[in-house]
Amino acid sequence: MPLPEKELISKLRHQSAGKPRLGSVRIGIGDDCAVLRIPAGHEALVTTDFSLEGIHFRRDWDAPEVIGHRCLTRGLSDIAAMGGEPIAAWLSLALPLSVSQKWVDGFMRGLLRLARRFGVQLAGGDTAEALRDIAADIVVLGSVPQGKAVLRSGARPGDRIYVTGALGGSAAAIASLLHSGALARPADYPQHFRPLPRVEVGKRLRGIASAMIDVSDGMSTDLAHLCEESRVGAEINAESIPRARVGRTRREVLREAALHGGDDYELLFTAAKGKRVPFQMAGIPVTEIGEITRKGKIMLMGDGLARELKPLGWEHFTR
Amino acid sequence: MPLPEKELISKLRHQSAGKPRLGSVRIGIGDDCAVLRIPAGHEALVTTDFSLEGIHFRRDWDAPEVIGHRCLTRGLSDIAAMGGEPIAAWLSLALPLSVSQKWVDGFMRGLLRLARRFGVQLAGGDTAEALRDIAADIVVLGSVPQGKAVLRSGARPGDRIYVTGALGGSAAAIASLLHSGALARPADYPQHFRPLPRVEVGKRLRGIASAMIDVSDGMSTDLAHLCEESRVGAEINAESIPRARVGRTRREVLREAALHGGDDYELLFTAAKGKRVPFQMAGIPVTEIGEITRKGKIMLMGDGLARELKPLGWEHFTR
Repeated sequence: MPLPEKELISKLRHQSAGKPRLGSVRIGIGDDCAVLRIPAGHEALVTTDFSLEGIHFRRDWDAPEVIGHRCLTRGLSDIAAMGGEPIAAWLSLALPLSVSQKWVDGFMRGLLRLARRFGVQLAGGDTAEALRDIAADIVVLGSVPQGKAVLRSGARPGDRIYVTGALGGSAAAIASLLHSGALARPADYPQHFRPLPRVEVGKRLRGIASAMIDVSDGMSTDLAHLCEESRVGAEINAESIPRARVGRTRREVLREAALHGGDDYELLFTAAKGKRVPFQMAGIPVTEIGEITRKGKIMLMGDGLARELKPLGWEHFTR
Repeated sequence: MPLPEKELISKLRHQSAGKPRLGSVRIGIGDDCAVLRIPAGHEALVTTDFSLEGIHFRRDWDAPEVIGHRCLTRGLSDIAAMGGEPIAAWLSLALPLSVSQKWVDGFMRGLLRLARRFGVQLAGGDTAEALRDIAADIVVLGSVPQGKAVLRSGARPGDRIYVTGALGGSAAAIASLLHSGALARPADYPQHFRPLPRVEVGKRLRGIASAMIDVSDGMSTDLAHLCEESRVGAEINAESIPRARVGRTRREVLREAALHGGDDYELLFTAAKGKRVPFQMAGIPVTEIGEITRKGKIMLMGDGLARELKPLGWEHFTR
């Protein structure tokens, strides 16, 4: 295998930084650390997310471009969920010797295309040889005006609950891959093959949202995280949950996929009852799906029944 | 296996942040991102480093405390090499189901003890299930007064070359583990079992050092990195390279170990000829070992001979 570390570094050196930003990378790849300026009056946001072969992706299911794209989406989506602006990313990539240069090129192409789209500079990272499985860890640094980050902990009883876009599209793609055996067509499952982090919506929600989280583990699990941090409960109206449309026939995904399916990268947020929340923000639909309650439980209301909504999304180590 | 993610998070929540710092973590673990303040007039430094089982460590060689300690040392040492002050760390940890809670506890104990010693707060990270091998990725964020970061690229012909501490101690421990088969005594090989990042020395070298790098891949390789970034060459005096003393008899390590052995986490730096460089900084000896030259080659002088010093330290994918 040719030297992927050097090739990678040379690739990283020559990528363009995209549109200019408030925050800036003064020293990028090639030193012990990257050196960055955080805009005056802003705080720094930092998030880190693994993409592990066999756990988060399978090489036989997805093109390397898709895996690289999703790897960065995970980090950008966390910045979006704080109402932040991404500035730079670091990629740590461990590759077994058996991985081809072509795969690495595809992975980097998918990742860098998304980075350019969001004006994010790849400012460094680490490369290493892996014994068996590919392991990628993405770090994203962003900024937010001081004191304006939207936390998970700000939801209050009476707040309305909203979600952007539609849910379950990525889970439906996985189900199709698992059960049909055939490769899914990317055009049929855009949420799986090309999820876009809701950075612009997140920024506009500063001052509107009282609490926010991104839907990465599954709505039921992510809502439970938000409620736990805010020490509140919730009532969700089952009928109002927006379900993704997938496949050639644009069929609606099953309700279970929308409730528990992960990797949608939509934003789940709350806003005080009187607050005006647009039906659409930056071209993305926003749907009211329930209300924050005082009691610690999360209830799913529908078909004239109220039942507890257990967090059945993705949790590591609990299967 | 009990839920390591929850245990890990609960462990992280209750760790103390150590001595107060200029930069501060406003929101740590438990949200989509950490939120931090960078001190006014400072720039942010970010570094990320893998610690992979079978590549960077072996569970049968080292106690989990040692592996956790070394994992964070790698990141702190990069901050030191820029003359920076560490503020916060993020740990991404992928664990196979076969790893015991006891191992995880030991790993965290070693990592957090070092974090407290350097006043660094663990501000988040990611946990995931690994299929087979443990993978840890450490991110450290620090700060440095604006424009004062010591880069690799600042060395000029005529500058003197210095190194802190002594080299080759970690390589000697690996050699002992590989060849004797017996477990090495930690007290005999402190550089391998308890390397301390030279953060205080790095800070004091701001305004003194013209270029700096930490010795993580091996002196010959790291000097080559520094010379490449500065577009210069170097002459090293073989006799003056400080060699670590190891084992029960405190024997000096072989010259080859000092030249090429990695994981010493000492600082290798240059300073202009007239600049006063103390023989000792923050209790650590500082030794002059050579001079920067105009020519792009790195020469090793000794025994009346000059021969080219090839970078024979650790490089991934090149074995």
